Amino acid sequence: MNSYILDGNAVAAEIRSEVKHGVEQIVRDGLCPPHLRVIMIGSNTASQTYVRLKMQDCEEVGISSSLSVLNDSITMNEVMDLIDDVNNNDEINAVIIQKPLPSHLDSELLDFSLSPSKDVDGLHPVNLGLLLQGNPRFIPATPLAVRELLVRSNIDIVGKNIVVIGRSNLVGKPLALILAQKNIYGNATVTIAHTGTKNLRAITLEADIIIAATGYPNTVTADMVRSGAIVVDVGINRINDSSRKRGYRLIGDVDFENVKTVAGAITPVPGGVGPITRAMLLKNTLDTIKANY
Amino acid sequence: MNSYILDGNAVAAEIRSEVKHGVEQIVRDGLCPPHLRVIMIGSNTASQTYVRLKMQDCEEVGISSSLSVLNDSITMNEVMDLIDDVNNNDEINAVIIQKPLPSHLDSELLDFSLSPSKDVDGLHPVNLGLLLQGNPRFIPATPLAVRELLVRSNIDIVGKNIVVIGRSNLVGKPLALILAQKNIYGNATVTIAHTGTKNLRAITLEADIIIAATGYPNTVTADMVRSGAIVVDVGINRINDSSRKRGYRLIGDVDFENVKTVAGAITPVPGGVGPITRAMLLKNTLDTIKANY
Repeated sequence: MNSYILDGNAVAAEIRSEVKHGVEQIVRDGLCPPHLRVIMIGSNTASQTYVRLKMQDCEEVGISSSLSVLNDSITMNEVMDLIDDVNNNDEINAVIIQKPLPSHLDSELLDFSLSPSKDVDGLHPVNLGLLLQGNPRFIPATPLAVRELLVRSNIDIVGKNIVVIGRSNLVGKPLALILAQKNIYGNATVTIAHTGTKNLRAITLEADIIIAATGYPNTVTADMVRSGAIVVDVGINRINDSSRKRGYRLIGDVDFENVKTVAGAITPVPGGVGPITRAMLLKNTLDTIKANY
Repeated sequence: MNSYILDGNAVAAEIRSEVKHGVEQIVRDGLCPPHLRVIMIGSNTASQTYVRLKMQDCEEVGISSSLSVLNDSITMNEVMDLIDDVNNNDEINAVIIQKPLPSHLDSELLDFSLSPSKDVDGLHPVNLGLLLQGNPRFIPATPLAVRELLVRSNIDIVGKNIVVIGRSNLVGKPLALILAQKNIYGNATVTIAHTGTKNLRAITLEADIIIAATGYPNTVTADMVRSGAIVVDVGINRINDSSRKRGYRLIGDVDFENVKTVAGAITPVPGGVGPITRAMLLKNTLDTIKANY
């Protein structure tokens, strides 16, 4: 028997529609729609695609956006000056710095220099600290997307045993914290597993919900999943595929074809967490205005 | 057979001695010793004792300290002004605000107004966020004490299954994060358990190391501990005891007498994590100077 497939596109469409209504309300109230500034440094091809998609998403829901493209030879000081300008520009409500950055730039220091109240990627230490304290302002889009997917798919989180595989600053650690938080969208018993974990299979077999966020295909195989468990796949990995026009296809961290014969519900890649992550950036951007509203 | 008893007083003495040498080195180098300002609001009897002990500890290792005692009718604005002065006073390297505060004051907002570089309790969201990112500046003293106890007792953390019971901002959450961090004093598989956890016993029975930080006596009983597991007790609870002159005695969150017959090693209360926590405040205070050194 196959799993129920959790439809990330449907959840994302629902969230985009809510954000669109939120923006319309703001405009009806005589305010400007939120404005997102995207800072892109260098000419990474994947980044160009992601940025284009993010700005299209904004347009679709009525959020205005603008792009600063910086040469990849730019110095830290020059980027810091630009961030200062953006921080002080009242017409810009939200800012993101598209990653990866050229290696001579200190990515964490740049995140640290953003105004926390415009940091819709939720990467400023203040925002991560508020998240840890259970008073989040902006939760990074990917962990937020995972929670949203579970909640909107009516999968109970409260009291469940959840294993998060991966301990990145962007996904694993914030996700573990928000799922363990005492509220109706949390209150789970959360295990943080990672490359240092011994006998991962013994641990995942005890889980009601398994979340894979490692960046490695086949991190979760069918023998690691208890019958009926929920499996959420955060991974997006390119693997060569000469049958595709672009020469590759995208797969997640989960062995989807085999795990879906065991799991109770599972997210596909693509079409799972990814589209919801895109939608959560819009939600965070809307919230920059709502917070002061 | 009884467990090995982990001696917190011995570890604390070792740390105090190291801090003392660190301060002496600073003074030999012609600098002032670090200065800790303690802010106490109101006249909570327990707080008065804790503050007195903290200042005694400072004196013992050569750290200078001073106390601001504020009336419990003080307003938020007045406290914020005082914190501003302390933040801007170059002669003060470190500041702590003794808790609990009178209920009309917003404790988290006050922590937020401290200069992060003087926040030796590690409670400013920036410091909690840096901890989450794995670049900690000041780690709160209690989680730091637990790690220090394990490391200095030669208990291997790497690759172990650790269950942290309790999800407070002060202990459980930061402790889970530092123990899961990829380094030689971490890299454990960490489960965050709490009041919402179902079948806690099944979870603790899988643990190599159990850390209790709930504030409830008998959170961990002997039937919950695998033979040979390490048990660390962060709790300090007062229970009535008419046989004692002061009318109470202190016990932890662990049923010590019974658990010690099962565990491989265990911390007593008092004399376990508590004294090391006091020593870690001194270490953090020393580090305010070392960081700029």
